[in-house]
Amino acid sequence: MRLEIRTTRREEFIEITEAVARAVAESGIQKGAALVFCPHTTAAVTINENADPDVVRDMVDGLARIAPEDARWLHREGNSDGHLKTSLVGPSVLIPVDHGCLMTGAWQGIYLCEFDGPRLRGVDVTVLPGMT
Amino acid sequence: MRLEIRTTRREEFIEITEAVARAVAESGIQKGAALVFCPHTTAAVTINENADPDVVRDMVDGLARIAPEDARWLHREGNSDGHLKTSLVGPSVLIPVDHGCLMTGAWQGIYLCEFDGPRLRGVDVTVLPGMT
Amino acid sequence: MRLEIRTTRREEFIEITEAVARAVAESGIQKGAALVFCPHTTAAVTINENADPDVVRDMVDGLARIAPEDARWLHREGNSDGHLKTSLVGPSVLIPVDHGCLMTGAWQGIYLCEFDGPRLRGVDVTVLPGMT
Repeated sequence: MRLEIRTTRREEFIEITEAVARAVAESGIQKGAALVFCPHTTAAVTINENADPDVVRDMVDGLARIAPEDARWLHREGNSDGHLKTSLVGPSVLIPVDHGCLMTGAWQGIYLCEFDGPRLRGVDVTVLPGMT
Repeated sequence: MRLEIRTTRREEFIEITEAVARAVAESGIQKGAALVFCPHTTAAVTINENADPDVVRDMVDGLARIAPEDARWLHREGNSDGHLKTSLVGPSVLIPVDHGCLMTGAWQGIYLCEFDGPRLRGVDVTVLPGMT
Repeated sequence: MRLEIRTTRREEFIEITEAVARAVAESGIQKGAALVFCPHTTAAVTINENADPDVVRDMVDGLARIAPEDARWLHREGNSDGHLKTSLVGPSVLIPVDHGCLMTGAWQGIYLCEFDGPRLRGVDVTVLPGMT
């Protein structure tokens, strides 16, 4: 199942937990795992706290210190920081499913991480059955 | 299957390879993959060398240079470094299983990475059958 | 299925997309996911842009700024930077498969990331069936 997310800034985290949970419910899977995969090269997927919005702001800022937009890059499109952040954070997460529900922890939310927006982004959800 | 790990410091890597291998053996899976998922937002899971303990010490120190505890963070709980490290290292690993065994390499161990301890942490192991 | 890759430098990204696609085709899987797993502790697997070769050069350079070879490391083998980069980038990628094809995005390539070469490296491809 394909989710579509419109991002609004160059760098931001957008929570997609509910849309992923809906895709998992619609699949009918009871036990296994849900793969949330981002088919882009300057956007990633991660899991982190969804209670205090300052946490994801701190992650956007912290990543900008690790891979600054204005470092010495060769690639001429000006988004090498975004490519590097994408490989650091990773293109996907895989979440256990049990009794038809995502087994994320109490404080975990699933995020699309935009590193070269604003753009229209897609995210693919694939369910993999487990052993019962 | 849920593993429980009691961590003893703010930041440390604790090897969980044997407990994961036991969970895989108990599942009866012969071929596929084992998902080791951490349901927390300031603890991660990774794979790295388990021969020389200096390697994981170097990783704890290297991560502290990348995401310093005392950087300019907004989140008031004082653990934004731990949230960022969690998304950098990642919440899970997925390991091939063949003939009922984890197919980790000769030098690979599986680690719970504590970034805001000490705490009692859980890790969930889910087995996914492969094609034979 | 095991792929073998001979690396030629201390640090480089080598594209393995076609070999992974071939392994997926040979498996006969129609729907599910392909796990590309690296059984080493100083080499990783990632997905990123395969159009402009400057992108992967920028990633090699950017990672060297994040984890410098000559930082204060305890481990005496001189490759702690490579161990840390391996846990930052991650030991595997999991890619959706549909209609027998890898569902990577238009600009995505799969890379073996060498962080302590040159060496002969192996990568294991495991296919996991999805729900249809």
